[in-house]
Amino acid sequence: MLRIDHIGIAVKELESSSKLFEQLLGKTSYKTETVESENVTTEFFEIGESKIELLVAESEDSPIAKFIEKKGEGIHHIAFEVENIEAEIERLKKEGFQFIADKPKQGADNKIICFLHPKSTNGVLVELCQSIKE
Amino acid sequence: MLRIDHIGIAVKELESSSKLFEQLLGKTSYKTETVESENVTTEFFEIGESKIELLVAESEDSPIAKFIEKKGEGIHHIAFEVENIEAEIERLKKEGFQFIADKPKQGADNKIICFLHPKSTNGVLVELCQSIKE
Repeated sequence: MLRIDHIGIAVKELESSSKLFEQLLGKTSYKTETVESENVTTEFFEIGESKIELLVAESEDSPIAKFIEKKGEGIHHIAFEVENIEAEIERLKKEGFQFIADKPKQGADNKIICFLHPKSTNGVLVELCQSIKE
Repeated sequence: MLRIDHIGIAVKELESSSKLFEQLLGKTSYKTETVESENVTTEFFEIGESKIELLVAESEDSPIAKFIEKKGEGIHHIAFEVENIEAEIERLKKEGFQFIADKPKQGADNKIICFLHPKSTNGVLVELCQSIKE
């Protein structure tokens, strides 16, 4: 694990939340991107070596819509940048951690990603991500 | 705002959660510290320029005990390191953000800290912290 890549925050509406985090962090976002496979639109703010990722649902069956329905707006997940995602998945499976999906997939911000099951991580939804080399 | 200083995670029991995060992050914690004013014990893991802070309640009236009762174990807050906490509080108050307490106070890990009210930050409990110079 190299660093906290980003903190994902579930929001109901992107425009007002984006303005709010712009005021909080004292800077504008650097990217907005829709991730079709998750039915979410994301907006990213840089902070040191990490990012804040706002997440808004694009449909009612999006995982973000379900999260907000259950828990309200707030911190949704924490993502760690890793050097080699396949090796890290293997290491963590050996330690007994459970994953939501068996294989990593394409995520936002030019990454391949996978999620650990929060049941095995103290209720924290943990994402692993690896930057795609161009 | 300079960087994400740490992510605070509310846990029920420190020994098993500490072992879990040791396995997850692939490293041992560097510090355990009790914060009397909050009735919590904390344990810190370094990750890049940031930290993971595990938080366990030392009494039933601790804010962490109340959080776990309401929401279960999981991510409790996100803390941003700032250069000048007084100036940052002033800037954010002018932007309309609300704070839980009026004055910053001594926190764990040699910091002075204050919390913004999650009502004004999309349900996210945001801490500002400034390192105490020795």
